[in-house]
Amino acid sequence: MRLLLVNPNMTVAMTERMTGLATDLADGRAQIVPLTAPRGFPYIASRAEAQIAGALALEMIAEHSAGADGAIIAAFGDPGLVAARELFDFPVVGMSEAAMMTAALLGDRFSVITFSPEMTRWYEDSIATSGLQSRSCGVRAAQLSSGNVATAREETRAQLIALARASCEEDGADVIILGGAPLAGLAAEIAAEVPALVVDPISAATAQVMALATLKSGLNYTERRNRPCAKPSVGLSAPLRAIIAQGAI
Amino acid sequence: MRLLLVNPNMTVAMTERMTGLATDLADGRAQIVPLTAPRGFPYIASRAEAQIAGALALEMIAEHSAGADGAIIAAFGDPGLVAARELFDFPVVGMSEAAMMTAALLGDRFSVITFSPEMTRWYEDSIATSGLQSRSCGVRAAQLSSGNVATAREETRAQLIALARASCEEDGADVIILGGAPLAGLAAEIAAEVPALVVDPISAATAQVMALATLKSGLNYTERRNRPCAKPSVGLSAPLRAIIAQGAI
Amino acid sequence: MRLLLVNPNMTVAMTERMTGLATDLADGRAQIVPLTAPRGFPYIASRAEAQIAGALALEMIAEHSAGADGAIIAAFGDPGLVAARELFDFPVVGMSEAAMMTAALLGDRFSVITFSPEMTRWYEDSIATSGLQSRSCGVRAAQLSSGNVATAREETRAQLIALARASCEEDGADVIILGGAPLAGLAAEIAAEVPALVVDPISAATAQVMALATLKSGLNYTERRNRPCAKPSVGLSAPLRAIIAQGAI
Amino acid sequence: MRLLLVNPNMTVAMTERMTGLATDLADGRAQIVPLTAPRGFPYIASRAEAQIAGALALEMIAEHSAGADGAIIAAFGDPGLVAARELFDFPVVGMSEAAMMTAALLGDRFSVITFSPEMTRWYEDSIATSGLQSRSCGVRAAQLSSGNVATAREETRAQLIALARASCEEDGADVIILGGAPLAGLAAEIAAEVPALVVDPISAATAQVMALATLKSGLNYTERRNRPCAKPSVGLSAPLRAIIAQGAI
Amino acid sequence: MRLLLVNPNMTVAMTERMTGLATDLADGRAQIVPLTAPRGFPYIASRAEAQIAGALALEMIAEHSAGADGAIIAAFGDPGLVAARELFDFPVVGMSEAAMMTAALLGDRFSVITFSPEMTRWYEDSIATSGLQSRSCGVRAAQLSSGNVATAREETRAQLIALARASCEEDGADVIILGGAPLAGLAAEIAAEVPALVVDPISAATAQVMALATLKSGLNYTERRNRPCAKPSVGLSAPLRAIIAQGAI
Amino acid sequence: MRLLLVNPNMTVAMTERMTGLATDLADGRAQIVPLTAPRGFPYIASRAEAQIAGALALEMIAEHSAGADGAIIAAFGDPGLVAARELFDFPVVGMSEAAMMTAALLGDRFSVITFSPEMTRWYEDSIATSGLQSRSCGVRAAQLSSGNVATAREETRAQLIALARASCEEDGADVIILGGAPLAGLAAEIAAEVPALVVDPISAATAQVMALATLKSGLNYTERRNRPCAKPSVGLSAPLRAIIAQGAI
Repeated sequence: MRLLLVNPNMTVAMTERMTGLATDLADGRAQIVPLTAPRGFPYIASRAEAQIAGALALEMIAEHSAGADGAIIAAFGDPGLVAARELFDFPVVGMSEAAMMTAALLGDRFSVITFSPEMTRWYEDSIATSGLQSRSCGVRAAQLSSGNVATAREETRAQLIALARASCEEDGADVIILGGAPLAGLAAEIAAEVPALVVDPISAATAQVMALATLKSGLNYTERRNRPCAKPSVGLSAPLRAIIAQGAI
Repeated sequence: MRLLLVNPNMTVAMTERMTGLATDLADGRAQIVPLTAPRGFPYIASRAEAQIAGALALEMIAEHSAGADGAIIAAFGDPGLVAARELFDFPVVGMSEAAMMTAALLGDRFSVITFSPEMTRWYEDSIATSGLQSRSCGVRAAQLSSGNVATAREETRAQLIALARASCEEDGADVIILGGAPLAGLAAEIAAEVPALVVDPISAATAQVMALATLKSGLNYTERRNRPCAKPSVGLSAPLRAIIAQGAI
Repeated sequence: MRLLLVNPNMTVAMTERMTGLATDLADGRAQIVPLTAPRGFPYIASRAEAQIAGALALEMIAEHSAGADGAIIAAFGDPGLVAARELFDFPVVGMSEAAMMTAALLGDRFSVITFSPEMTRWYEDSIATSGLQSRSCGVRAAQLSSGNVATAREETRAQLIALARASCEEDGADVIILGGAPLAGLAAEIAAEVPALVVDPISAATAQVMALATLKSGLNYTERRNRPCAKPSVGLSAPLRAIIAQGAI
Repeated sequence: MRLLLVNPNMTVAMTERMTGLATDLADGRAQIVPLTAPRGFPYIASRAEAQIAGALALEMIAEHSAGADGAIIAAFGDPGLVAARELFDFPVVGMSEAAMMTAALLGDRFSVITFSPEMTRWYEDSIATSGLQSRSCGVRAAQLSSGNVATAREETRAQLIALARASCEEDGADVIILGGAPLAGLAAEIAAEVPALVVDPISAATAQVMALATLKSGLNYTERRNRPCAKPSVGLSAPLRAIIAQGAI
Repeated sequence: MRLLLVNPNMTVAMTERMTGLATDLADGRAQIVPLTAPRGFPYIASRAEAQIAGALALEMIAEHSAGADGAIIAAFGDPGLVAARELFDFPVVGMSEAAMMTAALLGDRFSVITFSPEMTRWYEDSIATSGLQSRSCGVRAAQLSSGNVATAREETRAQLIALARASCEEDGADVIILGGAPLAGLAAEIAAEVPALVVDPISAATAQVMALATLKSGLNYTERRNRPCAKPSVGLSAPLRAIIAQGAI
Repeated sequence: MRLLLVNPNMTVAMTERMTGLATDLADGRAQIVPLTAPRGFPYIASRAEAQIAGALALEMIAEHSAGADGAIIAAFGDPGLVAARELFDFPVVGMSEAAMMTAALLGDRFSVITFSPEMTRWYEDSIATSGLQSRSCGVRAAQLSSGNVATAREETRAQLIALARASCEEDGADVIILGGAPLAGLAAEIAAEVPALVVDPISAATAQVMALATLKSGLNYTERRNRPCAKPSVGLSAPLRAIIAQGAI
């Protein structure tokens, strides 16, 4: 199957790292199509940035939707997810929602641990949107002194382990989600040091979109009653305009 | 004071009607600056459209932010509201949130009545986002057979009155919100036929942004801890890029 | 317009201070009618006291309801608010609910900061009654060692700033509400020292009741279905008895 | 033990009927002291009336508190309950809260069935105050055409049975609470016609206050941290003034 | 009346202690029938153990159901409660739910204090199941260094008092529940040292099942619509099989 | 990988049908080990039956846990799921929770449609346990006149389609879950007649347990802090006793 890995950030190195992890997880069963935002921000951290990048994500998916079996919005916080799920006729998952649903299947309660307090608000919004607040112990954030997301993974590693342990001890977390694309792949490295199951969001998202894609016999996307009506538009990219003009795809 | 009335839809007639109502409400105390989306959709109805139009709303506000004392996002559903509130250093209200907070000050429970089931999902999302679900009786929608929003107001008028009455009778609604820009101004016309207080969202939003603007002595926007950090960007309109580059404004 | 400022406490100095702030906010657009409780308590702190003072507030409003365009229940905690809103045919707001709705329009999350732990429980009740729990970060209280509400403002000022800062830092509060009539007017003084927007409840309540009063074309109070039925009574003040006897006013 | 049965309504016949039921339930183990409101309303139906009658209930309890082992606020809706529980150093229960806690011990979900839609809002408030919303199926009300509460029991009997059956069938109610003092004692009469357990609130309240009174070894009322501080007052009845002046009793 | 005290743990000493407390509380009005699990675990601490012991509790009740007027599931955590309440035609209460409903009648908010963090998760589940989360301040646990539940009461006594005080101070708890059968009877001993009402769960459960049993005129168990249908089974104890075969009892 | 398909009902035909569907879904990537309850009930419908069958499910998993990579509790309602997840050192999913998490990844809101009102209560419990109530539109049930679960699928087929359509139309459901083992496999057959995505729970559960099993690098089960302590027991099956004696496996 053909899966779009849509990084709504402009940082190609992040896309590459996540594509590697998704490809490993897919284990030959899916082709991962890496897409990096051509405009927008190096790394989204605010809801304002997510509003803009979420609209970009729709354009990115629309441009590559022909022949796609699924898409992953590869930014924790899921910019554009609700919109994309409404618009496209194949499964679209977000890294944060997919990680949370996965975590909820693994244990009673999960925590999100991230690399900077700058991310907290947006990630808390994601928990609320998922509906899983009663199964969440909230978000804990390390301090990224350098402010450099490219090195966040190494710089905050010890802090992240300490925060994960504290969340197990104090909050009773059964599952730890390492939130934020800069932490992609870290779960496997630190799992032995954390007394809980540790979820890597890009792996979880890949596993989930593949799970959804295998269910296809019951999924009759084109007849969904809640599919948006056809609508004219001005100023959108041609593929997105076309999809909205015909009423979802 | 100078207030931006930001219609994220492309329909100028709607902007004009709402500007008239806002100007009446302001009663000489504010200048209303009407802004109509230069791109996007004639009338937003889906969350996908709101994702895109919300990003446009940020551009529209940014372009006119110099000298503004406040802004109204003049589409029920509030596209871009959370993002705009984060980004700009003056009060920004949305028509739906402002109408709901107003309704909650007027009575225990409110209903949203609208002209088409196509709007229901998006408006329900707005209720959830407001946090006022425990004070809401939900959304009821008329059937707009013509599909023409320009005539929705007249076409569904009798249905809207009947729905409002039913919500009072069956749901115990104390306050009725007439949701959707096409219904702007209808509240005053039908209030005598509805056994509840009836709220006109554009009037409520205007009253609220003026209320917020008068509080200014306690509102020190530029020192907000939750203001987004400065961030470079590519492909945004120049004013929005500038604002994001300096870290909110 | 003519607005009743109903202080259900017996302390005239508080009424005067709040009247000054309300008059400033009204900026010539409204006449503020100051009313101080003739019986009851110097300063309400418990729910038992609020039960009694709330009944007094109804008498106070009833006595001055002729010609009134709105009323403010000028005690944080809103004694008698739900009852008054049911009974009178003009807008009645409470200082805490009005402050919270205002705060929710200014940012995602608000905290209430107050001068003594003795107030906490009652203020938490008010948050629950407002329905805005999901947008609240709770109540934090200073220690008023002197027990003297008249000097609470000066005595706890440094503590209040520290608590507000802690709530921004630890709870992510975007807006701080300074709860309790003894803190009236302090918001403007400390705003520069707090990294969030700071709301003064009496100013917010005045702004809100004026906002509601300007909406009047949709507000048909006398035809409300949820207006209480006419009812005989014994032992009430004559104006309140009359209003209840005719079924709201 | 000596239990105050505090009817905050002025209707003596109601007090007498409830006293009979409470006495039967107590079965010689408690003396029921009947108290009828000397002022106020024949029958409370609104929150405005409850605000006033709740303050009266405090006076009534205060006057007879010497030697009391507990008190029942004998109006469904529990006027003054939170205040009384704070103020007095013995158990105070309300008819609605006691009925709901009892119902929640008898089955997963309960409904409240009452004799008139006029009561619905106030009873819904009581469910919310109890915290048991997730175990409630809401309130259903008969139509009392005569408007005469004295005959409500007989007049609406067939309707009440039909509503109870509908709630079992449609809402899955396990337990039916017959809400409202006019329905006191009806539960036993109609239980055979309702496919659920049926709770009589005055019996439940009597059983509950006796249950609480038997627990006394762990109940050290006078040392409660949340007991209100001593407070001067003006214009209260002498016994209530005295109790508030010394800080609870 | 004849009440089954069902200890789903195998520890006879616990049953004896709880039987003594229940007998004291009943004060001659009920015969307490002590039942100790013949299989299972010395002391249940996990949800896995509760799944198994809850099934055992059904067998224990079934075997002694003839002539019973009520049953108490005498393990905090209430293994098998929902199932038993569905199956038997007399009141069945659990120690934790009965303690929580009792606490909610005594004050606004309660805390659960227990002897080991090992119990926390299961007790938190019980709070959620009760529906009283909005009236709960959560669970606080002492550290039982010895790991010996038989001596938990003495070993953790000072810690429990400190935790109870902290919960009053920091969480505003009005009522403290001492959770866990090993703490049975401790409430009366420590009440004087805790600034809140202290509830002993086995006493509360006994008081509650007696309260329910006295209501019987409205409780028509055999006609409950939600009673399970008759069902064949294999491998159950004969009395339980018989009860399930005839459709509840 | 080796996956246990644990049918806690005694009906072999159901196990076989579900095994076929799981095998198809696995598409050669997993061996499905079918297990049918050797005791208990032909078909579980009540919470009492689930209490007993959940304990059986633990025995069934324990007996076959050697070499297992995951387990599916193959009864909608998930008897024993929380217990099993606590006890075993591999992923265990339940049909209802897995279907709901899957549905929540496919759309905003899901409904559960089932073949008999007898199942409703238990399935509603499952929604509450999942934490996804805010994304659920509840349960709708057909009437199975014959009472024969073996033919439920054919007998209620037309009703199920009508209920699914009604839930789309009236509740706004985006996803329909066909709840109950007797409906296994029906989703694919009726999807074309339902204007929503339709989820088959056994397929969803198989897809989910495979997704979880592929994540294994972050899942360090044996070091989980919330793993139950080692505990002696009496009367359990030997394999379950052994696992509990060593502290999870």
